[in-house]
Amino acid sequence: MSGWSLVFDNYDPEQEQLREALCTLGNGYVATRGASCSEVASTNHYPGTYFAGVYNRLVSEIAGERIENEDLVNWPNWLVLRLRPEGEDWLSLDTVEILSYRQELSLREGVLQRDIRFRHGNGRVTRTRERRLVSMHDAHVAAVECEVTAENWTGSLTLRSALDGDVRNTGVARYRDLANRHIRVTATDELSEDTVRLVARASQSRIEVAQAARTRVYRDGSHVVPVTRSIAEPASIGQELDIEVHEGVALQAEKIVGLYTSRDRGISEPCYQADRLVQTAGRFDDILIAHAQSWQSLWDEFDLRMDTPGNSETELKLRVHIFHLLQTVSPFTPATDAGVPARGWHGEAYRGHVFWDEIFILPLLNLRMPLLTRALLRYRYRRLREARRLASEAGFEGAMFPWQSGSDGREESQRIHLNPQSGRWTPDVTHLQRHINSAIAWCVWQYYEVTSNQEFLSLYGAEMFLEIARFWASIAEHDDAGDRYEIRGVIGPDEFHTAYPDREDSEPGVNNNAYTNVMAAWVLTRAGDILERLSPHRKRSLVRRLGIGEAELERWDRISRRLKVVFHGDNIISQFEGYADLEELDWDAYREKYGDIQRLDRILESEGDSPNRYKLSKQADVLMLFYLFSTEELTGIFDRLGYAFDADTIRRNIDYYAERTTDGSTLSHIVRSWVQARSDRETSWCRFQEALNVDLADVQGGTTSEGIHLGAMAGTVDMLHRCYTGLETRDDVLFFSPTLPADVRELRLSVRYRQQRIFVRIDHNSLLLDSTPARAAPISVSCNGDVRTLRPGESTAYELT
Amino acid sequence: MSGWSLVFDNYDPEQEQLREALCTLGNGYVATRGASCSEVASTNHYPGTYFAGVYNRLVSEIAGERIENEDLVNWPNWLVLRLRPEGEDWLSLDTVEILSYRQELSLREGVLQRDIRFRHGNGRVTRTRERRLVSMHDAHVAAVECEVTAENWTGSLTLRSALDGDVRNTGVARYRDLANRHIRVTATDELSEDTVRLVARASQSRIEVAQAARTRVYRDGSHVVPVTRSIAEPASIGQELDIEVHEGVALQAEKIVGLYTSRDRGISEPCYQADRLVQTAGRFDDILIAHAQSWQSLWDEFDLRMDTPGNSETELKLRVHIFHLLQTVSPFTPATDAGVPARGWHGEAYRGHVFWDEIFILPLLNLRMPLLTRALLRYRYRRLREARRLASEAGFEGAMFPWQSGSDGREESQRIHLNPQSGRWTPDVTHLQRHINSAIAWCVWQYYEVTSNQEFLSLYGAEMFLEIARFWASIAEHDDAGDRYEIRGVIGPDEFHTAYPDREDSEPGVNNNAYTNVMAAWVLTRAGDILERLSPHRKRSLVRRLGIGEAELERWDRISRRLKVVFHGDNIISQFEGYADLEELDWDAYREKYGDIQRLDRILESEGDSPNRYKLSKQADVLMLFYLFSTEELTGIFDRLGYAFDADTIRRNIDYYAERTTDGSTLSHIVRSWVQARSDRETSWCRFQEALNVDLADVQGGTTSEGIHLGAMAGTVDMLHRCYTGLETRDDVLFFSPTLPADVRELRLSVRYRQQRIFVRIDHNSLLLDSTPARAAPISVSCNGDVRTLRPGESTAYELT
Repeated sequence: MSGWSLVFDNYDPEQEQLREALCTLGNGYVATRGASCSEVASTNHYPGTYFAGVYNRLVSEIAGERIENEDLVNWPNWLVLRLRPEGEDWLSLDTVEILSYRQELSLREGVLQRDIRFRHGNGRVTRTRERRLVSMHDAHVAAVECEVTAENWTGSLTLRSALDGDVRNTGVARYRDLANRHIRVTATDELSEDTVRLVARASQSRIEVAQAARTRVYRDGSHVVPVTRSIAEPASIGQELDIEVHEGVALQAEKIVGLYTSRDRGISEPCYQADRLVQTAGRFDDILIAHAQSWQSLWDEFDLRMDTPGNSETELKLRVHIFHLLQTVSPFTPATDAGVPARGWHGEAYRGHVFWDEIFILPLLNLRMPLLTRALLRYRYRRLREARRLASEAGFEGAMFPWQSGSDGREESQRIHLNPQSGRWTPDVTHLQRHINSAIAWCVWQYYEVTSNQEFLSLYGAEMFLEIARFWASIAEHDDAGDRYEIRGVIGPDEFHTAYPDREDSEPGVNNNAYTNVMAAWVLTRAGDILERLSPHRKRSLVRRLGIGEAELERWDRISRRLKVVFHGDNIISQFEGYADLEELDWDAYREKYGDIQRLDRILESEGDSPNRYKLSKQADVLMLFYLFSTEELTGIFDRLGYAFDADTIRRNIDYYAERTTDGSTLSHIVRSWVQARSDRETSWCRFQEALNVDLADVQGGTTSEGIHLGAMAGTVDMLHRCYTGLETRDDVLFFSPTLPADVRELRLSVRYRQQRIFVRIDHNSLLLDSTPARAAPISVSCNGDVRTLRPGESTAYELT
Repeated sequence: MSGWSLVFDNYDPEQEQLREALCTLGNGYVATRGASCSEVASTNHYPGTYFAGVYNRLVSEIAGERIENEDLVNWPNWLVLRLRPEGEDWLSLDTVEILSYRQELSLREGVLQRDIRFRHGNGRVTRTRERRLVSMHDAHVAAVECEVTAENWTGSLTLRSALDGDVRNTGVARYRDLANRHIRVTATDELSEDTVRLVARASQSRIEVAQAARTRVYRDGSHVVPVTRSIAEPASIGQELDIEVHEGVALQAEKIVGLYTSRDRGISEPCYQADRLVQTAGRFDDILIAHAQSWQSLWDEFDLRMDTPGNSETELKLRVHIFHLLQTVSPFTPATDAGVPARGWHGEAYRGHVFWDEIFILPLLNLRMPLLTRALLRYRYRRLREARRLASEAGFEGAMFPWQSGSDGREESQRIHLNPQSGRWTPDVTHLQRHINSAIAWCVWQYYEVTSNQEFLSLYGAEMFLEIARFWASIAEHDDAGDRYEIRGVIGPDEFHTAYPDREDSEPGVNNNAYTNVMAAWVLTRAGDILERLSPHRKRSLVRRLGIGEAELERWDRISRRLKVVFHGDNIISQFEGYADLEELDWDAYREKYGDIQRLDRILESEGDSPNRYKLSKQADVLMLFYLFSTEELTGIFDRLGYAFDADTIRRNIDYYAERTTDGSTLSHIVRSWVQARSDRETSWCRFQEALNVDLADVQGGTTSEGIHLGAMAGTVDMLHRCYTGLETRDDVLFFSPTLPADVRELRLSVRYRQQRIFVRIDHNSLLLDSTPARAAPISVSCNGDVRTLRPGESTAYELT
């Protein structure tokens, strides 16, 4: 690893699937699991070209039950590029003698390069240098170049370039028994002597994807016109090119691909468009230059600098995270209908579904490129219709967004789950995670606080927020005995607790999950603020449309003050009502027996036991509250609810739950690092470093190869933006309260806040804010209580004591 | 007519096609030529359901030449609803005895109602009341209700409700010989006893449209379950319902339709979605209430009030114009890929193509609902790729937007044109109207001036603007003799002059069209301002991406100062170089011979003559400059070009060209009314009244039935916003300089400017500005030189002297 590159300098078949994921190339519209593979040239083993925003709902059958939850479709593989020297087989790393091997993902340029030197048939030595990209300049372009140099031989070489529609969804082992062929190739054409085109249609959605590939060979800068044969198979189309190779003379094979779908805008139809694109495309290097410039602009927006003596890798790891975030959510995202899937477009796990990862991702995007947040929130808004139906079908009012979203926004959560540990399919009720709704509302509010975008709030944000508030008011039931409102039968972020131990078969969910109830109280409180932020006219219009009356607003206010939170022991917030009655687990015994106990749920199930019986958590649940809210805010919420709360409560709860969490979710590291940032900087920094390794070291042992963990990736970057800086956006002020870890000497980053772009430099003695000239209004900034006005183009410095 | 309704109180088969257009119902996503027809219930004669944003490029063949310019597709007709009393034929207005007839388009609610009382078979007297809507609340919903009351009989009645895919494009007589079947029905299904579904696919684009229709009958508020038969034909699907009718008892037949296309976002696939929608839809009145509320909100945004003693119809006519504008460009537009077609979605003329009407429409939208302007400019931005190709293929740099846009943004202008007067097909070179590019640039600038939307400018606006500037710089050629830059071979807004008389067959276009050159100079001048408005970072990024260097900017500056404008006579701006040498037409002779000489081009061609020989114009050309720019701005532009210019020049040119214009374009009235508003208020007001009648009185004699003239409609409303108020947005100031026509006692309207909403009241003595409370920065306003600061929630009044 260097500061800007992820480098692998050996060929390791064992590591291939992991590297596939880590080297995925994408531009927010199309993604391909980049990476090495056993071929000398391209053709990845694990085909995967994904199109953001063309989710497709597919139906599988397992154990006689229809499973309707496959959403991510493997589209035709455009990478196929193979080499065969005359008299030999197709070159493969498994058969040649590798003399040197180096694979480098350049984060700065967004290019994956693989250099291989190898010996093959009769002592021939050949070098290949392959470069790939998925263009960040033009959403519809991908390209691969393979430079071949025969070091000690001259002869004929056949190059095969193809588009392969014979693909299946096989990226996740445990899904392989489910239906895995989701596309049908509808046409293959050889358009000219150097261009082929393949069209495929998804089985269920009938979405069409067209790819056209132009393959040309160059030597000494000149176009070589080879002998070409068409290679047509039922579901693939390609061309074989016979080329003369001269000892020591490099030749470059370039494959330029145009990709369009029937969901694209501004097009005639996808086939024509793909064809026209490759007809008029320049050479690989032209495409690369434009692509690299676009990455340069993105890095200008997103880069950060850290001075961390003795730990030069932190900066690089953060860049890897930013890189994959921007390959998933990019400047092209507003033109798609894509949300932010939990595993990026980097693998098939969770089938591309959208969970609550927004809550870990959007705060960062707000501060860097808020139009991306807006695009992701509009993904939700477009699915408000379905969320209303979900609420209505469940007997509630307002909008109830699904735990797992895809397609038109229906609930895509699986109903049964395979435990690889036991081989058993067990019922899955995790869709009861209603807290996703508060996550969306929270993101709307955060976006508004940072941008002050009145138009978005008026047209989309407020409507979602109010409909979510309405849902919470309708799911809350009044308990006359305690004069409290209760939310029953839900699941909190900790998915280990899906029912009470004695009611596992009859009644899913738990009651009064603290996180759920406090967030609901926050939403119901903020609903009034949302209405106040609207202009009188827009408020009138929205209230009329939604039919919100005074009585309903009063009810919201009442519930927001009387939602139930249960405590036990010494001011410990019970994760849910009845948590105190659960048994303590013998943690040491399990650690000893199993080693890795991140997925205690699977372990316990395989033993015929259940996590529902124990005081344990997969991930932070109560602690999420301390992650999302400052002590000041939280004190306000609990005060309003009529519960005692102080800074000491936070400390006690952190300690209590820290001992009872398996960190089975990658997000857990982030949350736990965050909540300890002020009380225990050292532990926080350690956990932060763990979070940085979630994917790069594949800490969950195999899950990264099924797709990176985008929430954790963005979450680490956000730690630097909001946690160690103490950045908060409240009451029209941009607050700072830095608490830099000891290992960080200096941190430099930039944030956007209400049309200003502000460069932030923090060390242990000072905070410097430097605003770029812009046509924008002055803003209020504050550091540790000292509020100042900052105008575009001005700087201000705070001494830290 | 009443203040809010367009009423026709007779049945007049001659007027049907015109009323079809004037009563078109739409919501910016889907439109149906509403209106009456000879059926007693629905089934319009002139089928036409259009989907904004699913332009489709189709190929026809005429006279052996491929004509590739049909873009508007007639999709299945959802309106079919017919009645047949037992023992009679299907009821038709052509066979029954009409006792009373009234058709009312309610602008306030967006509902078309038709009340008919008639006598039929054996003296039976029946009343029907039909109401239709295309929902402004839910883009995918349309509904029709038919209430039937048998006044003096009891018996059985058959109701037929169908979706008819057997449609053709026949709305424009002169296109009928071209290919006119553009869809293929791919599936028809009876989904349940009250629901049918039809799916069709466009031949060329393969876009799919699904419609589901649910038909239910109610009596006394209860659902009547009739005997139902399925009526399936190859390209249509319907149901016949047998119902008992009781004397004097009304029954209501309701047809609720769900419409989706494969381009929609947030969907699974269109069939499922249409089906699910009608399954869960409420009753007609539920849909109507939500629809009317949405219209109420729209009117809150767009309404205006005028006190015009003795002329109560002006206000109504303006509302008709606003109504049709909002049915074409609506709050749903940002979710589509639609531009603003010249004839709305109200007819098939020009095949839905997008011309330069933005220049007459966007200024109004800027001041009322600027997100609509942004959506329309993004329609252009999505076609920047094709504009670049068009430029490149024509040998130019930058982006050259097409004169007629559709589909992916290719040039859709016809190459040959049918003269109905002579029956001859003649070459059509009107695509040489390169001035469309300046119109787009001008709209970008106007939008930015009004909204100050930095994000839009950075991401989309500036790029389009600079690429257009680049195009102008590359098409301009330096003439060493006069040291001037020339733009040769173009056509100005006046489409009558397509070549020099002696070069009609060899060299299309004219040289140095004044409008084109002055606008190009303006664009090249403003390009620098655009760059200055960007933040340093975004500027760097954009300049790098576009490869704009200092030398290029200097070249733009030089050209902007040296573009050629030709004058003749007494400071008359020659419409183009050589205009002075053309012959004067004997206007009186032609008026006497032909009466209506709006289309002198067709008249002259049929005589074997050509308009190219004469000093005549179809519409304002030079005068457009006085329409777009204030005297102050124009003086600046001409100064910079090194030409003498003063207010007197304007007066002379208005007089000169007024005598030589046929007003063959509906836009001409607007421009001529505008440019005389200050010098001759009375004439201006007369022309304004003519512009108000363009469609309502079908002044072009038949063109309105082929689609309304959206530029003229919006243009009249804009006259009140910007012309008679003297509203200008320049240099971060909102300027006013009212010049109310004598016939207008008071004008009240509202404008949005930089996040503030300001109510404006003008009479002959004062101007009142009243800003609504909002979270927004203070703005600068000015009236006749007196600049003041206006904060949200504040008012300020100016005395007018």
